[in-house]
Amino acid sequence: MAVFVQKFGGTSVGDPQRIARCAARVKQRVDEGHRVVVVVSAMGHATDELIELAGRVTARPSRRELDMLMATGEQVSVALVAMALEKIGVAATSLTGGQAGILTDGNHGRALISEVSRARLDEELGFGRVPVVCGFQGVSRSGEITTLGRGGSDTTAVALASALKVAETGGCCEIFTDVDGVYTADPRLVPTASKLARISYEEMLELALLGAQVMHPRAVLFGERYGVPIHVRHSQRPDEGTMICRETPEMEQMMVVGAALKRDLGRVSLRRIPNNPGVQGMLFDAVAKAGILVDDIVQTEFGEIASISFTVDHGDLADVKIAASQVLDRVGTGELAIEIGLAKISVVGTGMKTHVGVASRMFTALGDAGIPIHNITTSEIKISCILGKEHAERALAIAHEAFGLDRLAAGTAAAGAAAR
Amino acid sequence: MAVFVQKFGGTSVGDPQRIARCAARVKQRVDEGHRVVVVVSAMGHATDELIELAGRVTARPSRRELDMLMATGEQVSVALVAMALEKIGVAATSLTGGQAGILTDGNHGRALISEVSRARLDEELGFGRVPVVCGFQGVSRSGEITTLGRGGSDTTAVALASALKVAETGGCCEIFTDVDGVYTADPRLVPTASKLARISYEEMLELALLGAQVMHPRAVLFGERYGVPIHVRHSQRPDEGTMICRETPEMEQMMVVGAALKRDLGRVSLRRIPNNPGVQGMLFDAVAKAGILVDDIVQTEFGEIASISFTVDHGDLADVKIAASQVLDRVGTGELAIEIGLAKISVVGTGMKTHVGVASRMFTALGDAGIPIHNITTSEIKISCILGKEHAERALAIAHEAFGLDRLAAGTAAAGAAAR
Repeated sequence: MAVFVQKFGGTSVGDPQRIARCAARVKQRVDEGHRVVVVVSAMGHATDELIELAGRVTARPSRRELDMLMATGEQVSVALVAMALEKIGVAATSLTGGQAGILTDGNHGRALISEVSRARLDEELGFGRVPVVCGFQGVSRSGEITTLGRGGSDTTAVALASALKVAETGGCCEIFTDVDGVYTADPRLVPTASKLARISYEEMLELALLGAQVMHPRAVLFGERYGVPIHVRHSQRPDEGTMICRETPEMEQMMVVGAALKRDLGRVSLRRIPNNPGVQGMLFDAVAKAGILVDDIVQTEFGEIASISFTVDHGDLADVKIAASQVLDRVGTGELAIEIGLAKISVVGTGMKTHVGVASRMFTALGDAGIPIHNITTSEIKISCILGKEHAERALAIAHEAFGLDRLAAGTAAAGAAAR
Repeated sequence: MAVFVQKFGGTSVGDPQRIARCAARVKQRVDEGHRVVVVVSAMGHATDELIELAGRVTARPSRRELDMLMATGEQVSVALVAMALEKIGVAATSLTGGQAGILTDGNHGRALISEVSRARLDEELGFGRVPVVCGFQGVSRSGEITTLGRGGSDTTAVALASALKVAETGGCCEIFTDVDGVYTADPRLVPTASKLARISYEEMLELALLGAQVMHPRAVLFGERYGVPIHVRHSQRPDEGTMICRETPEMEQMMVVGAALKRDLGRVSLRRIPNNPGVQGMLFDAVAKAGILVDDIVQTEFGEIASISFTVDHGDLADVKIAASQVLDRVGTGELAIEIGLAKISVVGTGMKTHVGVASRMFTALGDAGIPIHNITTSEIKISCILGKEHAERALAIAHEAFGLDRLAAGTAAAGAAAR
């Protein structure tokens, strides 16, 4: 008897009809003879509506009170999903995060899960019942309701799957979403993209960080740490999705499993600044304090003079400009340049570790197509090129083709990437 | 330093503006140097909306899952009220029923409070914070969320006031509502009605059972049992309301403190039935199983033949007819008569215990006005007359006047009744 954790997102439980479909999905697993734990998010726009309501009461709600408020969103969902299950004859028990044994560090608004006590889940499963657990929340040791912040519901699902040792039972963590798996590239942009049957945690993590919306990096990291197999699949379609799992030898056969595109980047350059160790810290400290997420950073130096370039989302450029100007004022020398209209193309694959010539193949393909590259950054399993946004979609297709991703049999690829 | 429990109903916290006004009310008590615990209901129509949502998922939600769902209504309110308090500089902590130490018997949908553990409240009060507690809910010993059913939020407030021994500190339980106190009669019907300064638990209980909406009988009973002074007052006006407290000798000076009207009653009569001990049990068991609340019961007997009459709300007549017909079938003899268009006028007062001639004064007054009385029922502190609804409002005014309630100085009456 395998144990499955099934997670349904906010869209999947957006109204009573969709909730009924989720319930049918759960029943299917139960009817197969498996044990199931369900994790759900707040319905559709419930979370946004609660935030809006708080905004009408005060401009600065405390994080503790926001948690108290937000936690009701998932509580409504679990009650309704449990009702829907009982309606079709599946015994179910809704549980708040705290009731389900999810203990957190008590950091309101962005709590980390410190422990999962599986006693209550085991009790419900032992009675043949389906526990339906609030995603995104837990309680601190002192009983305070805390939310987990971004990616919280996926993280709840993976944490419960880990505590229940689903892999040992032959089960996995199923993440039901509105895409049917992880693709070699966004199929809306690259029609020859195919769905990957498997992908490693490491690759999925890179792709998630590069903008693939399919799963939050935090949940992928959690899965990697505890070895939880994660099956990403469509909530309304029966097809197999993509299994996120540990790297296998066959995965290394493929140099690259996916190509990704991130649009609307701007590049900020501080040129001719003093090349001393304190400058970078000062700069990125100022940027971080402004709440801005920095993409790639490139530094070049010429003796005592250096230049630093980094990319950020277009929307953050105005704030970055202020922060960077203040740093230049303190440094006393140098100039600030801002470029807009950039995009980033990346290819990802654990196979890069053992294959040579990956970077050159990408540069050659882009060069042959006459596309200029502004910046290059690499990690152990990723190569990214910054280029003009007018070339973005063509460059994505070229990179996708250059690594043979357009010639994979659909849905049978051993590994791959870039969520639709 | 007195301790006050302040309870705000659903209308009082219906939107962010009203919530701000409640917060100001709390701040006033805090600024006076008192300690305050706040109890709130779900916002306006939140509870109805949740029930409607459940109805779209299943026709028969389990009581446990309904509790899980409904409990979110109060949780939203407490978070928002705590935010509103912090906004105006009052330190506050929202608490679920369970966090506030309210333990119940675990009976979902209509739980009874079995214990109040005041540790958390004392801790928050000790830190100079205002605990804002979810009304209407608690947790069972096993941590299950349970709602208290009708009158639940008032009951929560009185229970907390009892646990905190507010009377000993010089404080009380303040019930803020949309009426400004308890009146000698409904002022919309009897313009000469005046607000009572004080009323005994017993009198308030009778009036609540006779249809006064101002407080739920259950909370009044709880207050009586534990001697919690309850101050019913308007949430948006500063005036003193009505204090519900133990009977005092001066209260006995007044024969009657209030007159009440209950409309739209129907009378069901079973005539010429066998006068044997089992019949009444059979009849009212059948009526109770149909979920119908019976008003007054009158039985008359002539040797081996009896007649039983009782009144119910118009809306219940169809169901009563079915239940009563089945009983007649089993009894094998007798006939069923249904009358509609009746109303009930009552006068209430603990003074009746020590005064004579109360009933005769009421009958004489109604008789002089030419109003026929169909039925009469009395309790130790109440006299009720069933009469045609066409006479109802005039009879109310006549009864009100007959006991001198129209000559009380407004707001200074020592005791009295009939909520507006």
